[in-house]
Amino acid sequence: MSSYIINFTPTGMVPTKDHSVHVPIAPQEIIDEVLEAREYGISIVHLHARDAEGKPTWKKEIYQEIIEGIRKEEGSHHEALIICVSASGRNWPDFERRSECMDLNGGCKPDMASLTLSSLNFTSGPSTNSPEMIQKLATKMLRNGIKPELEVFDPGMINYAKYLHKKGIIKPPFYFNIILGNIASSQAGLLDVGYLLSQLPPQSYWSLGGIGASQLKMNTTGLVHGGGVRVGLEDNLYYDAQGTQLATNIQLLKRITEIGRLLGSEPYSPGEARKILGLN
Amino acid sequence: MSSYIINFTPTGMVPTKDHSVHVPIAPQEIIDEVLEAREYGISIVHLHARDAEGKPTWKKEIYQEIIEGIRKEEGSHHEALIICVSASGRNWPDFERRSECMDLNGGCKPDMASLTLSSLNFTSGPSTNSPEMIQKLATKMLRNGIKPELEVFDPGMINYAKYLHKKGIIKPPFYFNIILGNIASSQAGLLDVGYLLSQLPPQSYWSLGGIGASQLKMNTTGLVHGGGVRVGLEDNLYYDAQGTQLATNIQLLKRITEIGRLLGSEPYSPGEARKILGLN
Repeated sequence: MSSYIINFTPTGMVPTKDHSVHVPIAPQEIIDEVLEAREYGISIVHLHARDAEGKPTWKKEIYQEIIEGIRKEEGSHHEALIICVSASGRNWPDFERRSECMDLNGGCKPDMASLTLSSLNFTSGPSTNSPEMIQKLATKMLRNGIKPELEVFDPGMINYAKYLHKKGIIKPPFYFNIILGNIASSQAGLLDVGYLLSQLPPQSYWSLGGIGASQLKMNTTGLVHGGGVRVGLEDNLYYDAQGTQLATNIQLLKRITEIGRLLGSEPYSPGEARKILGLN
Repeated sequence: MSSYIINFTPTGMVPTKDHSVHVPIAPQEIIDEVLEAREYGISIVHLHARDAEGKPTWKKEIYQEIIEGIRKEEGSHHEALIICVSASGRNWPDFERRSECMDLNGGCKPDMASLTLSSLNFTSGPSTNSPEMIQKLATKMLRNGIKPELEVFDPGMINYAKYLHKKGIIKPPFYFNIILGNIASSQAGLLDVGYLLSQLPPQSYWSLGGIGASQLKMNTTGLVHGGGVRVGLEDNLYYDAQGTQLATNIQLLKRITEIGRLLGSEPYSPGEARKILGLN
């Protein structure tokens, strides 16, 4: 029996209730969704916070509210979900706001934080992550005992991870999210995936994600080829490839774990995932 | 006998006389270097302009001075060098300045202009090219009869070229510069090159370039595998891989054409390159 990581991405910076009523926006909605998702084998949750108007926010108080809401329903810390906060700069460029959520500590200290490894374009515009910013974010993670979730959209980003490793700013074991099918990034084909995986450094764990209809293809490819899955409404709002039927987070999780089961694979528990990623 | 394009990049936005005394900076230095390089088989020249203090400039008057200086020494228009101007946004972000050099016309009209197909990071910082900016630049090129020099650092950029083609903003035959070995982009290995080439759309011509010591490796790989070369001090200041000996542009050109000759290949003349790229 093989096992895999499910990295759950219930809500991002972009989708709103206008896009889909199923996207959790308010802290309590996110908490409820994450706790329900626990029953479907998620081990990592990738969080973005929204303010009272539903707009993306960097504020650590809101991250704290969400993390506390999740933690208070969980049992032992050993099996506590791996909580990953967002250090995205898409809506606010400065280091202070991007990294504020890494200042949470005690029971609300995040286990991981996202680290996008270069600048890139999305359909909606550029996501700028200068080398200096990336190094400052990674250094703060290292200092605060927070593991980077290494976000990869093109092979150059893997090379930059190797460079950060050489500089001692990130340490193995590495956890990569490889997210394919964005219009200006690597596509979600077999050759793309094969090539990207061939570039990973030793001691790397990886999950495959995809934008839109690529999500299911990439998740399944990850399961077949020994990786994990990044799944949720942040990257994909629809259940079907044609985009006619809005999905819920739980429907997406149910489907991919069902595919995993048929492939003879079960999700790692949070405690198992903590062990392989070197998180206590 | 096979043939290949030499895309000559004598000076960029970054190198100064402090980096190497051999970098041409003033308009007349650039003109002299380009005219001498003509004797070594260049068919395209990729120009960046500098102001009186040697700082990069967008000003069309300076581009005009350089282009006039080259054109007045050339014979028939049919064999005139293909002149490519820079639309880089690394030092000025706005569309007006980035595209000012495309307003030149008459005898100084550029044949091509550079079009970087996404945002990316260099060691010195991010190079931001939003989707909107890329589309505006490409649209102006199309309207002004200027062919885009499609600059690729990672496979996602090739995908974005396909998207622009589907939208009708760029038209075949395509000319790609694939520039490898930048720290946050695809590396200069065989697998990297093979993968990138496999992603090119039909009717694509391509030249391989490399940053630093990768330049010679990528130029030679281009020659062996049916492509062209992007060569010059813009990407690489040294003659040797160890970086102990500063190169001149002419030394770099002499070496790569010598390798080409030993491989049984000769550079296209500007007129031949015009024909295959559909330039009049």
